[in-house]
Formats: sequence, C-alpha cells, structure tokens
Amino acid sequence: MNLEQLKEATRRQMPEKRWKHTLGVVDTAIALAERYGGDAERAELAALLHDYSKAWAIDRMETIIREQGLPPELLEYDKELWHAHVGAWAVQAEHGITDEEVLNAIRYHTSGRERMTKLDKIVCLADYIEPGRDFPGVDHLRELANVGLEEALAAAFGSTITVLVERGKRIFPLTVAARNDLIKQIKQTQK
Amino acid sequence: MNLEQLKEATRRQMPEKRWKHTLGVVDTAIALAERYGGDAERAELAALLHDYSKAWAIDRMETIIREQGLPPELLEYDKELWHAHVGAWAVQAEHGITDEEVLNAIRYHTSGRERMTKLDKIVCLADYIEPGRDFPGVDHLRELANVGLEEALAAAFGSTITVLVERGKRIFPLTVAARNDLIKQIKQTQK
Repeated sequence: MNLEQLKEATRRQMPEKRWKHTLGVVDTAIALAERYGGDAERAELAALLHDYSKAWAIDRMETIIREQGLPPELLEYDKELWHAHVGAWAVQAEHGITDEEVLNAIRYHTSGRERMTKLDKIVCLADYIEPGRDFPGVDHLRELANVGLEEALAAAFGSTITVLVERGKRIFPLTVAARNDLIKQIKQTQK
Repeated sequence: MNLEQLKEATRRQMPEKRWKHTLGVVDTAIALAERYGGDAERAELAALLHDYSKAWAIDRMETIIREQGLPPELLEYDKELWHAHVGAWAVQAEHGITDEEVLNAIRYHTSGRERMTKLDKIVCLADYIEPGRDFPGVDHLRELANVGLEEALAAAFGSTITVLVERGKRIFPLTVAARNDLIKQIKQTQK
C-alpha cells in the first residue's frame, strides 16, 4: 500500500472536519521536523495516522483495548486517550505498519510519555498547534514552537493539566511525567 | 515524654510564625476529626508534629534523606516536599513516635498519596485551611471542608497543581495520584 492509498484509507475513518485537522497536523509535523532536524518522512506518516481511530465508536475502542492487550488502565481515564493506543494497534493490524517509532508517536500523541523521542514530540506538538486549532493560548504555543520543541510541549501539557483541574477531572499520570521530563530536559540544556 | 514536653520540643524547632501556624493546624485537625468521625487524639499529635523539620536547613534535610534511606526521588522535586518525610523520620528518631498512622500523616501531609487514610486527609486539609492561611481560593476550600474531606482536599491539590503549572515547575506524581484517587472516591460515593 502506497502513501496515497493509505491517505484514502485514513480519510475513510473520519468525518471531513477531522480529515482537515489531520492534513493540518501533517503539514505542521513536516515543518517541525524540518526545523528541528527530525525525520520528515516518518513525521508525515505518523501525523497522517495519528487520529486513525479517533472517530471510532467508544464500544469498538473498548473492545479492542480489552481484547488486544492494550493498557487496561486506559479505561480508567478520559476516553480522549483511548484512540491513540487503539489507532497504533489499528494501523498495524489493518495496514501492516510496523515501524515502532511511528507506532509510538501515534500511541503517545495525546498523553505524551517520559523520554519522548523527537518524533513523539513533533507529532504531539503538531496536533496542538496545527492551523485549524483555536483554543485559549494556542497562539502562545505557536510562538513557543519557534523557541523549542520541549518549551512548547511542556506549556501545551501544562494547559491540558490546568483545564483538567478546572473541570474536576482526573489527570493521566503519563502526561504529568511527560511534562516533568520535558522541564528537566529544558533545565539541562540551559546549564 | 508527655504531650506538653513534645509541644515544647516542637516549638524549639521553628520560628514563632511557624509555631502559630502549627497551633492553627492542631485546632483545625481536631475540629475536622470531630466533624468526620476521625481519631482526634492522633489528629492532634500528627498536626502538632507535621512541620517538625520544616525550618531545618536544606543541607541537613538532604543528608537525612540520603543517609536514612528516605525516598531518593524526593531530591528530584521541590524542597517543600522534603520536610514531611524528614519530619516523620525525626519524630521517630528523636521522640520515639512509632505509631505508623501518625508517621504516615506527617510523611504525606504535603504531597498526599493514593489511598489516603482519614487521618492523612485531616492533617493535610487542616494544613491548607487553618485560620492563619491566606491564599487565593482558601475561603472556597474552607467551605468545601464542610461538604466533605475528599471534596475539599481534591480542590486543594488541584490548586497546588495549577500553581505549579503557572510557575513552570514540575508536579510531584504522588499529588496527582492522590487527587485522582480522591475524585474516584467522590464519584463512588455519588453512585
């Protein structure tokens, strides 16, 4: 399956609005990869596939998490997190994507994780700041994206955490670990 | 050593302002214990001792953490967290306090932890809302303390997390775990 066929297959998984977002993430991820010396080809592929399962039914995602050995603690947290792990499983099962770097970038694009790879950071940040995004503070994140991947992403996770606190919702521990780790990386660079 | 002697020994560890805060926490902890069916005697003891090492020199605390087998990851996070674990160690070493419930309430009064005991919750919340405290939102926490220990404490941890995000500081994972767990407890009660 070539990239064009994969694009068509991905487009079929989601409504038009989500597809437009996906194309925004693809463009932004390629630009970030070029700016920060990342692998633009992998960034394009991971960005294309990052929301592959986003529009899938909750029941379908829950079944896959339970039956395919995905982390069961996902079910304890916001459903927003499910599609990332389910998506990584799906593109492997349905399209034979086996590049672990690409699969991890899909898997952790919502939560982040400790010791994020450059590709993880690029896809995750592109998802926050692609041109179609419009939430309080997004322009500040776009400015920070010119300062550094870590600076922008730490701020993005911070804003997610603040919103979860405001809404009285639980915070996925991996996002806190990801932000803590990014702050540590920024400090080490400054030394 | 009786309670009066322990009070004197504790008072000698800290400046007057911190001692006044301690007395506020003692009164508030006793009141919360009475309101929520907790052990008022243990609440008084743990509240009295909760800041035993708060005014100790950073170097002294660091040495104790390193040499007495306290969790080394403490050193990775805000120094604000150190005195709680150091204090639990100190009151055992210096005054023979061995009641693990009391020691844990001291140990986790700043960070919280998963599956907090009622005593943990009482001491931790009393520390946030004693009459001498004056920070944005403290009155709201005092109101929530009339609704439930869990409601008030989840909000208190939420405000701590938000402040850490605003300041670009790392968040101690245990505080997130504590808040997540409290929110879960609140939901289960509502069912």
